[in-house]
Amino acid sequence: MNRDVPLKKYAKKMEYSYTLGAFPTIELLKNQPEHVLKVLLHPDMDSQVQLEIIEGLCKQHKIPLEWAGKSVEKIRDKENIFAVGVFEKYQNKLDSSDNHIVLVNPSDMGNMGTIIRTSIGFGIRNLVIIEPAVDVYNPKVVRASMGSLFQMNFCYYSSFEEYQQCAGKRSMYPFMLKGAVPLQELKRDKTEVFSLIFGNEATGLPDSFSEVGQSVVIRHTDNIDSLNLALATGIGIYEFTK
Amino acid sequence: MNRDVPLKKYAKKMEYSYTLGAFPTIELLKNQPEHVLKVLLHPDMDSQVQLEIIEGLCKQHKIPLEWAGKSVEKIRDKENIFAVGVFEKYQNKLDSSDNHIVLVNPSDMGNMGTIIRTSIGFGIRNLVIIEPAVDVYNPKVVRASMGSLFQMNFCYYSSFEEYQQCAGKRSMYPFMLKGAVPLQELKRDKTEVFSLIFGNEATGLPDSFSEVGQSVVIRHTDNIDSLNLALATGIGIYEFTK
Repeated sequence: MNRDVPLKKYAKKMEYSYTLGAFPTIELLKNQPEHVLKVLLHPDMDSQVQLEIIEGLCKQHKIPLEWAGKSVEKIRDKENIFAVGVFEKYQNKLDSSDNHIVLVNPSDMGNMGTIIRTSIGFGIRNLVIIEPAVDVYNPKVVRASMGSLFQMNFCYYSSFEEYQQCAGKRSMYPFMLKGAVPLQELKRDKTEVFSLIFGNEATGLPDSFSEVGQSVVIRHTDNIDSLNLALATGIGIYEFTK
Repeated sequence: MNRDVPLKKYAKKMEYSYTLGAFPTIELLKNQPEHVLKVLLHPDMDSQVQLEIIEGLCKQHKIPLEWAGKSVEKIRDKENIFAVGVFEKYQNKLDSSDNHIVLVNPSDMGNMGTIIRTSIGFGIRNLVIIEPAVDVYNPKVVRASMGSLFQMNFCYYSSFEEYQQCAGKRSMYPFMLKGAVPLQELKRDKTEVFSLIFGNEATGLPDSFSEVGQSVVIRHTDNIDSLNLALATGIGIYEFTK
C-alpha cells in the first residue's frame, strides 16, 4: 500500500487506521511492523523513553518517522496524544485448532478492546466477530485493547452458522442468562478445544443458542440485571484458562 | 433538603446529584426514595413502561414528578436521556462485619461504576474508597453502575491506615502484580470476612501493600502489561464469592 495516504480522521471505510498514543503505537510496531505505513510525532511528545523505543523500531523496520504536529492534531481525539501509527488494515486467519472467543453482535468499542486485552492476557489469541458488530479497527477499540489487538487473530462472519461451518472440532459454550449450568459448577475436559460465545451488550444471546453445545450462566444475585459484557467475558476466560 | 435546588450541570461541590436516564432513576427510586428531591421528564420520553414505573414510584413515595424538557436538556450529557432523578447526597455506614471492596486511588469513573455493579452482582455491598479518588456521586459513575450504587454502602477514607483502624477483624487481600500467591491457587477459609484491595489504574498498589495480609496476583501471560482494573476486580470478586 502507498505510504502517502490522506491523513484525515478515521472512518470505517478507509483501508488504513491509526494507533492513537505512544503505547499502542509501540505494540503495533512490535507485532505488525510489516503493515505500518508511517509513524507521526507531535512536537509536544514528552516521553524520551517512548520516543527512543519508537525511533528504534522504525529504524529497524525501515518505517518512515515524521514530525507532523498538524497531522497528529487532525487525527487524534484527545489532546494528550503525541504519537500516531498509520497502518494498513490486514487479513487475519483464525487458528481452527485453538480456543476461540466469539462475540455475537458486540456494539461497544470500549468493551471490544477490553475483551481483546483480557483474552490476550489469558492466552486466547483467536477472536470471532459475528456481524452486525463494531469495527475492530476503530482507534477507540485499538486503544481500549492497549494495542493487544495486534497480537490477536480475528475474523468477521456474517452469521454464527457461517462460523460453525469452519470452526473445526471443538466444544461450544454459549454464555447466557438462561444457561443450563452455572460457570461456578461447570465440569469439563481441560484438554478440549473450546469456543466461548457471548451476546450483545443489551440483548445477550438469542434463546436459540441454548441448543449450541453446553450453555453456561455466570450466576449472580438478582440485585443486578446482568453483568457488564467485558466483565462476563473476562470471568469466563479466567475460569476456562485456570 | 429544599427540593428547589438550581438545576444546573453536575459539579462535585454540589450537595446533590443526578441520575441520567430512566434505568438508574428507577434504581434510585426503588432503593433510596427518601433522598430523592424530584424527578424530571423530557417530553420526548418514549418508553411507556418506564414512565409508568417512575410515576408509580414517585406517587408511592410522594416525590414531585415534573415535565421539564429544558432542565433535562441542561443537565444531561447525551441526547437520548429523557428522565433525570435529582437526589441529595447521603451518608453511608459500612458494615464492619461483612466483606469489603477497597479501591485505593481509583481514577476512572467508568471503572468505578462497573466495579460497583459487579460487586452488587456477586453480593458484596460495602465499598471503601481511599482518597484521592473519583467522585462516586458523579452521574457518569452512577450510570456505569447501572444505578446499583444505590444498593451499596460506601465510605471515603483519607488513607488506608485510617480505614484499617476501623475495619474490624477480617482478612486483607491486596491484589498486586507482585502478589505472593496466584489467585488461581489461593486456598482460604471460606467462612472468613475479607477485604479485597485494588490499586490505581495506572500505578497499581504501592509495594508496601505486600505487608498487608495475603497479597494475591491474578496470573496472566506477559503479552499484556496488566489487566484492566474493573476486570481484575471482577475476577477477584467472582473467585472469592464462588
